[in-house]
Amino acid sequence: MSTPTQNPTGTADPTAVEITPRNRVSRARERGHYDRATINAVLDSAILCHLGYLDDGKPVVTPTVHWRDGDYVYWHGSNATRYMKRSVDTEVCLTVTHLDGLVMARSAFHHSANYRSVMIFGKAEPIDEPAAKMAALQAMIEHLYPGRWDTLRPINDGEFAGTRVARVPIDLASAKIRSGPPIDDEPDYDLPIWSGVVPVHATFGEPVEDPRQHPDAQRPEHELGFDRRFTGLPSAR
Amino acid sequence: MSTPTQNPTGTADPTAVEITPRNRVSRARERGHYDRATINAVLDSAILCHLGYLDDGKPVVTPTVHWRDGDYVYWHGSNATRYMKRSVDTEVCLTVTHLDGLVMARSAFHHSANYRSVMIFGKAEPIDEPAAKMAALQAMIEHLYPGRWDTLRPINDGEFAGTRVARVPIDLASAKIRSGPPIDDEPDYDLPIWSGVVPVHATFGEPVEDPRQHPDAQRPEHELGFDRRFTGLPSAR
Repeated sequence: MSTPTQNPTGTADPTAVEITPRNRVSRARERGHYDRATINAVLDSAILCHLGYLDDGKPVVTPTVHWRDGDYVYWHGSNATRYMKRSVDTEVCLTVTHLDGLVMARSAFHHSANYRSVMIFGKAEPIDEPAAKMAALQAMIEHLYPGRWDTLRPINDGEFAGTRVARVPIDLASAKIRSGPPIDDEPDYDLPIWSGVVPVHATFGEPVEDPRQHPDAQRPEHELGFDRRFTGLPSAR
Repeated sequence: MSTPTQNPTGTADPTAVEITPRNRVSRARERGHYDRATINAVLDSAILCHLGYLDDGKPVVTPTVHWRDGDYVYWHGSNATRYMKRSVDTEVCLTVTHLDGLVMARSAFHHSANYRSVMIFGKAEPIDEPAAKMAALQAMIEHLYPGRWDTLRPINDGEFAGTRVARVPIDLASAKIRSGPPIDDEPDYDLPIWSGVVPVHATFGEPVEDPRQHPDAQRPEHELGFDRRFTGLPSAR
């Protein structure tokens, strides 16, 4: 599916996903991006996605942690959950959104938001083969908490059997990004109406120790990796 | 649909929504809430929802601004967008999620997230009657920027005609909330593995002035209302 694609700046990008009617950004097309570097940066800097699937023919949207490995995005959950029963071996839409700012224009109509989002459409496949499933669970922990996996009490058989992992390829995908100041109608710039952008930040606070912390437990350094990833800068991977 | 409902603490709440198989929290049931105060607090403290609908029989999840008025949640967009064509007069799922923390346990299995989420299922209806539509657009601006509507250049006929508003009743709805420290298997508390919660905060930065700000424009005080609403405390409404 990695057909070279014209990106919005007109450059042929051999790493870009194919643009089809399903993943094309149809409104505000200049905000659409199809190159993997842009798509991956949005995915990697988010912790939660919103996963869309059908239950009895009706749409359901479940928030869940996602992580990327190569050209796939993964999620997991208990075998017993509705979303792990309904979001595998079927068509899904996985959406990640960063809200970056509130755009206050001179008219209600031109109010907007600054954001970075990715939508991925496709058929979700289960990762049931044990070694692949264990590797995926390790990748999830290492994505959020680099270095933590080897410090943990290992997964036991019951936990492993009760957990399901699924993924969707990053093929029918697009990023949509808005940034910058309001864009008002030209005559409206003559009006003395305050206009600007209120930035929105997602930040991490000081870790809260477990009240039952073991006296010999040492706070790991890997929390320091969070801020960089979460604010959308390139991850350390 | 406002049948009195047992909430998780066992108290009959006359304001609670009805619990049905569609909106019942099926996993971790103790995290489920059906009273309107809890549901509304989650909705009102969020700016973005993720709206699920079908396009050609397949799920699509679109991030968009939502706002609440009474027992309905509203959204809007251009008539020309896929999501405003496909998310009206049909079944939708509207989900709002606050990520509040990363829960680091002593096993991979018990890692979790602290969050507050709401899912609403139902048939979306258009708000096409002009007075109701204008009132809804005003309510959106006033929700985000109290006092701003009257200061703006009024909506013109073309903008009004090109905008669609829709809503869904808060009936088939539930909130799901996790908070607090990790819950580990009892024997794992003897392991010297650091455990705790990394808080996640959504905050507003200092407003960035429009580079084309009118010299007579005065920065409004209503930005000061943001923080309280966004951090999940009761709104001023």
